Amino acid sequence: MAEQGKQGGTVFGPDYVRAISPYVAGKPISEVAREFGLDEAGIVKLASNENPLGMPASAQRAVAAAVTDLGRYPDSNCFALKAALSARFGVPEDWLTLGNGSNDILELAAHALVEPGQSIVYAEYSFAVYALATQEIGARAIEVPARAYGHDLDAMGAAIAPDTRLVFIANPNNPTGTFLPAVQIEAFLQAVPPHVVVVLDEAYNEYLDADQQYDSIEWVRRYPNLMVSRTFSKAYGLAGLRIGYAVAQPALTDLLNRIRQPFNVNSVAQAAAIAALGDAEFLRRSAELNRAGKAQLVEAFDRLGLEYVPSFGNFVLVRVGDDDGAGARVNLALLKQGVIVRPVGNYNLPRWLRVTIGLPEENAAFIAALERALA
Amino acid sequence: MAEQGKQGGTVFGPDYVRAISPYVAGKPISEVAREFGLDEAGIVKLASNENPLGMPASAQRAVAAAVTDLGRYPDSNCFALKAALSARFGVPEDWLTLGNGSNDILELAAHALVEPGQSIVYAEYSFAVYALATQEIGARAIEVPARAYGHDLDAMGAAIAPDTRLVFIANPNNPTGTFLPAVQIEAFLQAVPPHVVVVLDEAYNEYLDADQQYDSIEWVRRYPNLMVSRTFSKAYGLAGLRIGYAVAQPALTDLLNRIRQPFNVNSVAQAAAIAALGDAEFLRRSAELNRAGKAQLVEAFDRLGLEYVPSFGNFVLVRVGDDDGAGARVNLALLKQGVIVRPVGNYNLPRWLRVTIGLPEENAAFIAALERALA
Repeated sequence: MAEQGKQGGTVFGPDYVRAISPYVAGKPISEVAREFGLDEAGIVKLASNENPLGMPASAQRAVAAAVTDLGRYPDSNCFALKAALSARFGVPEDWLTLGNGSNDILELAAHALVEPGQSIVYAEYSFAVYALATQEIGARAIEVPARAYGHDLDAMGAAIAPDTRLVFIANPNNPTGTFLPAVQIEAFLQAVPPHVVVVLDEAYNEYLDADQQYDSIEWVRRYPNLMVSRTFSKAYGLAGLRIGYAVAQPALTDLLNRIRQPFNVNSVAQAAAIAALGDAEFLRRSAELNRAGKAQLVEAFDRLGLEYVPSFGNFVLVRVGDDDGAGARVNLALLKQGVIVRPVGNYNLPRWLRVTIGLPEENAAFIAALERALA
Repeated sequence: MAEQGKQGGTVFGPDYVRAISPYVAGKPISEVAREFGLDEAGIVKLASNENPLGMPASAQRAVAAAVTDLGRYPDSNCFALKAALSARFGVPEDWLTLGNGSNDILELAAHALVEPGQSIVYAEYSFAVYALATQEIGARAIEVPARAYGHDLDAMGAAIAPDTRLVFIANPNNPTGTFLPAVQIEAFLQAVPPHVVVVLDEAYNEYLDADQQYDSIEWVRRYPNLMVSRTFSKAYGLAGLRIGYAVAQPALTDLLNRIRQPFNVNSVAQAAAIAALGDAEFLRRSAELNRAGKAQLVEAFDRLGLEYVPSFGNFVLVRVGDDDGAGARVNLALLKQGVIVRPVGNYNLPRWLRVTIGLPEENAAFIAALERALA
């Protein structure tokens, strides 16, 4: 009676909003502790692709310095942070949009570029927010079947309809960890009609090895319909503060700016992001820890005979059984042991779990708990 | 060529997005210092209705304690803060929505409740975000002429069209400071059709004197189509952290929850808000300082023979001249003296300025600068 916008005989909200299933976030440690009667200190959370090193010390110092002025509104234009990003990437400041996490960027793109009834193209098994952003505005989703759990760019190009205004590409992809080499993406950009905007979501970019890196900012210079989205929530370790950004030419940036909330990025996040952006050593340590942890998980999966998708991110998608109840069953068995990972039934991957790469001892605790869960 | 979503021959985005004029935020102190070659320390900012006491010490301590865990995503469900709000207001937790500032709440309401082409009713001279939220979704604005710079609720009720889905009411109103007594609002709620949602924006509620306070949460219990919006940015002193909330029955709350960004409220804001909510002494001091500062400003305006709108908020709207260039002219003269207030030409009030009530010495500096500007 009180569900889906209905109250007695009154129905609130458009059909397309009432049809949305809200995003299911990873369970916070405190919630799992309450639910399973566990001690918070003993819980291992490998559920949300967070940096196991936490926030860099440089950003902690920046946060401490920012605390005195929090009665003031944030700088709506993120002057200092834009200057830092501009210097880093060699693009003018009016090519930059800051968001309340890159989630904000993805939703702003959909809201700013697509009318209800027009279509948005994205891949099967790609980030859940693409589908949510599409539903929220009453747009039509064109979900293109995956190839080997990753994006099939040829099929995605062919799926673009006359009313398509936006394509989401995640590279590396979440939750599967797959990667598209630069040459494939650039071929896609060349083929896409110029009025169709491509959002290249690079939330996990900083985890790529040097030989996998490519210069997507240079593509932004060449393709007026490309928007690159990045985040400070993953390798930079600032998930709790909410900050991400987009790089695009001024025509697109201007549209995002028209509809973003004027104070969408809080003051603490702005200060912390400037510090983290300059902390190359933290980024290097994070990537190195991730490489070692990935090897640790993969070795265990091989030993246990579990299929997994080779990952280019800070997580691994692993198949924990042959029946559609496997993911939920093993997830529950892990939760009871105080290990939180991410079930991906909502991605139509009910036999799989997504495990964030943690500290060596966290990975070991997960592997031990997984062995018990599968036994 | 790079403006309004156009790039060469390619046009991005819906017409209704390209037609938006972005919100103009108050200039940050650092920006004014750069622009006018002033020392930041000497600048007085009375432009954004911030609490001149800054953030409460209780919230500063909470922020310091939260800094260790910012590599983790925030609690998407704001468990601890909802528990505190639930206890404070005596409503279940599924009646509460947290937002990235109450700006987020206002936009969520428009997005969740109104389809493009349907209409939203709000008053002339009311908060700029109502118009922005309407434009962003391609809805039709029904702006109802003000009465004595405040809401004309009779006219607003009469303006509700068959396709109206939402009415915004600000009480007290920003930028004019006007107040609607409880009896008028309740009569309006009784008359509004049940499928039309009323968002009662009470961003300045905590500044009301005891004899002006009314129990809007009790109205939420009686009216399934009422949503009360509040913020921690004003009297609670947390503008830089971005946090606000809505109280509404579950049918409405559920819809907002479907479209809010899963991690819309950062961890620091959640921790600070819990502390500030329990800091009755800070709220009392803030209201008292505001009463005294209001008297200080009003006395000066009377002495200078300047018309002003009697204010129920933490700011005063004052007429600084008889010609339509007066607001901009006096604003510039104030800026050159290092005093930042808010011009309101964008509200079609070009002869007026909105001045936030500051500390006694800030108010005095503004008054002295104003006298020089008018001389």
